[in-house]
Amino acid sequence: MAARSPLKNRVQIQKISPMVDCGRYAAKAVAGDDVVVGADVFREGHDKIAAVVRYRGPSDSGWREAPLRLDTNDRWYGHFHVDEMGPWRYHVLGWTDHYASWLDGLTKKHAAGQRDLDPELEEGALLLERRKRLPKAARQVCDEVIALLRGDAGLDDKVAAAVDPDLVALLERHPERLDATQSRPDLPLWVDRERARFSAWYEMFPRSEGATETTSGTFAEAAKRLPAIADMGFDVVYLPPIHPIGRTGRKGRGGPHDLAPGPDDPGVPWAIGSEAGGHTAVHPDLGTIDDFDDFVGEARRFGLEVALDFAIQCSPDHPWVREHPEWFKHRPDGSIAYAENPPKKYQDIYPIDFDTEDAEGLWNELRHVVEFWMDHGVKIFRVDNPHTKALPFWEWLIAEIRVDHPETIFLAEAFTRPKMMQTLAKLGFNQSYTYFAWRNTKHELTDYTVELAHGGMVDYYRPNFWPNTPDILTEYLQHGGRPAFKIRLVLAAMLSPSYGIYSGYELRENEPLHEGSEEYYESEKYRYKPRDWNRPDSLAPYITRVNRIRHEHRALHDLRNVWFHHIANEQLICFSKVAPGRTEPILVIVNLDPHHAHEATTWLDLWQLGLEHAGPYEAHDLITDTTHIWHGPENYVRLDPDVEPAHVLSLRAL
Amino acid sequence: MAARSPLKNRVQIQKISPMVDCGRYAAKAVAGDDVVVGADVFREGHDKIAAVVRYRGPSDSGWREAPLRLDTNDRWYGHFHVDEMGPWRYHVLGWTDHYASWLDGLTKKHAAGQRDLDPELEEGALLLERRKRLPKAARQVCDEVIALLRGDAGLDDKVAAAVDPDLVALLERHPERLDATQSRPDLPLWVDRERARFSAWYEMFPRSEGATETTSGTFAEAAKRLPAIADMGFDVVYLPPIHPIGRTGRKGRGGPHDLAPGPDDPGVPWAIGSEAGGHTAVHPDLGTIDDFDDFVGEARRFGLEVALDFAIQCSPDHPWVREHPEWFKHRPDGSIAYAENPPKKYQDIYPIDFDTEDAEGLWNELRHVVEFWMDHGVKIFRVDNPHTKALPFWEWLIAEIRVDHPETIFLAEAFTRPKMMQTLAKLGFNQSYTYFAWRNTKHELTDYTVELAHGGMVDYYRPNFWPNTPDILTEYLQHGGRPAFKIRLVLAAMLSPSYGIYSGYELRENEPLHEGSEEYYESEKYRYKPRDWNRPDSLAPYITRVNRIRHEHRALHDLRNVWFHHIANEQLICFSKVAPGRTEPILVIVNLDPHHAHEATTWLDLWQLGLEHAGPYEAHDLITDTTHIWHGPENYVRLDPDVEPAHVLSLRAL
Repeated sequence: MAARSPLKNRVQIQKISPMVDCGRYAAKAVAGDDVVVGADVFREGHDKIAAVVRYRGPSDSGWREAPLRLDTNDRWYGHFHVDEMGPWRYHVLGWTDHYASWLDGLTKKHAAGQRDLDPELEEGALLLERRKRLPKAARQVCDEVIALLRGDAGLDDKVAAAVDPDLVALLERHPERLDATQSRPDLPLWVDRERARFSAWYEMFPRSEGATETTSGTFAEAAKRLPAIADMGFDVVYLPPIHPIGRTGRKGRGGPHDLAPGPDDPGVPWAIGSEAGGHTAVHPDLGTIDDFDDFVGEARRFGLEVALDFAIQCSPDHPWVREHPEWFKHRPDGSIAYAENPPKKYQDIYPIDFDTEDAEGLWNELRHVVEFWMDHGVKIFRVDNPHTKALPFWEWLIAEIRVDHPETIFLAEAFTRPKMMQTLAKLGFNQSYTYFAWRNTKHELTDYTVELAHGGMVDYYRPNFWPNTPDILTEYLQHGGRPAFKIRLVLAAMLSPSYGIYSGYELRENEPLHEGSEEYYESEKYRYKPRDWNRPDSLAPYITRVNRIRHEHRALHDLRNVWFHHIANEQLICFSKVAPGRTEPILVIVNLDPHHAHEATTWLDLWQLGLEHAGPYEAHDLITDTTHIWHGPENYVRLDPDVEPAHVLSLRAL
Repeated sequence: MAARSPLKNRVQIQKISPMVDCGRYAAKAVAGDDVVVGADVFREGHDKIAAVVRYRGPSDSGWREAPLRLDTNDRWYGHFHVDEMGPWRYHVLGWTDHYASWLDGLTKKHAAGQRDLDPELEEGALLLERRKRLPKAARQVCDEVIALLRGDAGLDDKVAAAVDPDLVALLERHPERLDATQSRPDLPLWVDRERARFSAWYEMFPRSEGATETTSGTFAEAAKRLPAIADMGFDVVYLPPIHPIGRTGRKGRGGPHDLAPGPDDPGVPWAIGSEAGGHTAVHPDLGTIDDFDDFVGEARRFGLEVALDFAIQCSPDHPWVREHPEWFKHRPDGSIAYAENPPKKYQDIYPIDFDTEDAEGLWNELRHVVEFWMDHGVKIFRVDNPHTKALPFWEWLIAEIRVDHPETIFLAEAFTRPKMMQTLAKLGFNQSYTYFAWRNTKHELTDYTVELAHGGMVDYYRPNFWPNTPDILTEYLQHGGRPAFKIRLVLAAMLSPSYGIYSGYELRENEPLHEGSEEYYESEKYRYKPRDWNRPDSLAPYITRVNRIRHEHRALHDLRNVWFHHIANEQLICFSKVAPGRTEPILVIVNLDPHHAHEATTWLDLWQLGLEHAGPYEAHDLITDTTHIWHGPENYVRLDPDVEPAHVLSLRAL
């Protein structure tokens, strides 16, 4: 037998949570979180054990620790506070608590009326005696207890001294860890700023602001729109690509099948690059880089952050095509391969060839692009189709950027198969698009939200719910009228801590390219689209109210806290969120049918709402500013979509 | 940027199964198995990928491999055959299949009617041309195809040559793995002999055979019982400890509370050790070690294996108490600590102190005990209360024994919390006791079996179902009469590949120590218990039939294949098992109510039974040897417990 200490690794530690793919990837949190850690911790026999989570942040020179407490069935939980962005690590440490084990036996025997406990008391004295390393004051307390245990006090007094809570607390503060097990490997945790989890996005094409049908708007014009966006309560203004647009293969204003652009048709912003420059240039029609800087500064003045699109693809006119032909795939005839999804062809786009022999040059240049815009005040990037680029590149890029800029946020725009979407989040993307746009029924919305909030994904995948995008005008919005826009807004904004809308939503733009298509008619992707923002029927006031509710109620800043309650109507959905400690509950009830009024009785899980001991309670509707007095789990609700399709209720025990 | 090859780790490999605790522990299989391996495998974009599982057994000098095939949603499956006991390892390898990707694009364009595919065809020729390392014959085939692709054949002929299945198969046999990802770490798999999974156990106290109320039986007498046990169809005869029994603190024949043993009371076999010896001695009343060897030889002659009890505890009279006092915990007064579960005291048992400073000596001696009995032909050990011994010890012991004796089987007798029971299996125990004895209702039996068979446990935890043990006479057996014994036997034997009974079961011994107790009245643990095995009402013929069914039907040798079917009566349970490929289905229907007849209609999942395309099929009852013709999923069943409480049906399409 190899020499081994019987006192090591005596405690089993298994199934630590959070843990993403065995620790291969980092779990995520935001600064200010109390990160909850769980683990199965146990050992043989009846001895008592103790456990802590040990953790260290980027500025820590050593491990800090926080206690774990037994929940049930050998599962322990504790939490630690993360107060700094960047990479954290943690592990669990468990050991036998010999004093607690001894105390447990002593008190059981004492309680059973056994009087001859001198050997037991001496065992306790010996346990205290061997604690040589205690600080002086603690050592003194122990010595006093030892003297008492060995002295001529009565048995009851001796037992009372042994169980004294101050002594027990003192020993817990200075634990004796003779046989400790440390979980391996250390698990990674990435801590973001809060914006990475809680954010309301507004997507706009700056070229449409101040535009005509044939002339482009500018950054300067677009900046005039910022106060209104801020007033609506958004946090992030996201701009599709602002770079020069190629001429070769340009699509006309007619849409995706219009291959004959007019001279004034501006082309698709994602066809990046022309003789005016590539990924680090701004479209001359929008202004100069200084104009962009002004736009960012103006946004900041109104409390908005600017998010840019990062789309790794080139128009045939992009400077890289000339300067770095090796970054593109060449056909046997020497031509560059355009994008294809056979038999479809996209002649206006050259994809980057991540199999290039010059990966080092390519990757560095792409990093340079990101850093260029960071130097211009951009900290948020919405990444276009990341699932069509080499995954090792994303893991490298995000890690590189984070070294000096942990505040950077990357949103993955991948609408693809689930495991790819999950993996992009694992690789480091801070937020991710979702299937929300196509989840309409109560069953679909419940299942999908539960999967995101109560499955393993919540540890690393931060959903960003979009009711619409320039590519997605859902059938529900096409046909549901004004109520549909309110319904989908409330669902997105209340279910997910991060959500966004594409501009025009407030004007209820709902005309598709053709029946059965999710493309917009007269899509802004292909043309300038000046709008009348001041239309009296705009949903802006409604959006403003929804965003204010989000900001004012902590419960809406998280996802793990969502809970679905029974309501006896398939067209009504009822869910809640609570602030930490099951406080400040928000209850949302939405009529999913934009065409008809529905009524039903709730069956609320009062425990989840922190109202299990409440009598009557106040349900204050934050949308309509009306108040009802409710009682217990059953309450009658009626929602007419033509009046208000949703209740957003702040509940308060009376 | 650090130099990195863009061609490495391009493919994602995640969530490999089986995988126990991230590979910390080995999954289990038995020699002859086709081990099914699953993994999420995918990459960015639309390129085609390929994957294999690579594996190596104890005698392999390199990796072997088997293909994985895409199932659905990026999940791939394959299997490899394990033909040898011992430690195996495996990992998954995935890579981009450039030829298949090219072929996919070519055939789509061709199918869409595109005729100008010369550049595409040249790309294919170049892909084939770069395959320099192919064997000569394969190289020649490629050269022919290249010539054809570049020649003046028609487009259709060129495409036909490119998709030729022989060419594709040839390229698959010699894959080009430019950007392969290899999963890490290699995952461990432990391969046992089949007995580790499929076994029927019979527990007997040899001292009762040929005994009187006051005199012990012997190995020689017990050996006479072996033919009958073999005739019943059991594989393993398990003996409680056969060692000398201590005198100090001996319990009398009256049972656990009888502290005044008579001179002829034999004591409890688990109070191991006297002046006659300890764990490597046999009780003098049973005979000599030579008599034991004869018993083992006789068992082998009848196709039975002998399993011994390994109980790491000592009577105060055990030689180790004198020879190794350091292996026991001493009280401050110098006495040795007896076993306690405060306030209960077990003065007749000294537990071993795994915290001893002489762990090396202790562990080696315990290994020596196991090896001693292995030298006497024992390859199976039923380990008593392993959850009260240091867990690192078990992991070490089992690994040590396996180095030279991979055929050894350890059964963990732990009736304790779930995670401890699971962990013992992870540490290496080949089989485990379960909660089966206390799962009586349809809901309980279904849930528990599904947890064992279709959760993660099935990869490492092999249940052994016992309807009774010397410690467990369940309420169900106490009150259910003869039908109860048949019901629990059929359930144990049909649900679990391994099961066992404690002798006396065939005689339906059902009298408890007192109402509400699971202890037997006049328990054999405390006394000799001669029995009349030839009673005409013995269940031995029924047991014989059940065991023969088990042996003759492959479906019953596995656990993963169990499937529960709907049957519209809460007192009837209906489940099936099938041989590989959904063949040779066995359907079991049991009336769980031992007191009343019940009837209902089945709703069989015909796909699970491999009968989805069948017309009428034969249902042959292997218990009663009667045959019914059944149709479709719905069939009427009536089971009267006083006639036969269970159908065990072999189904066969007509």
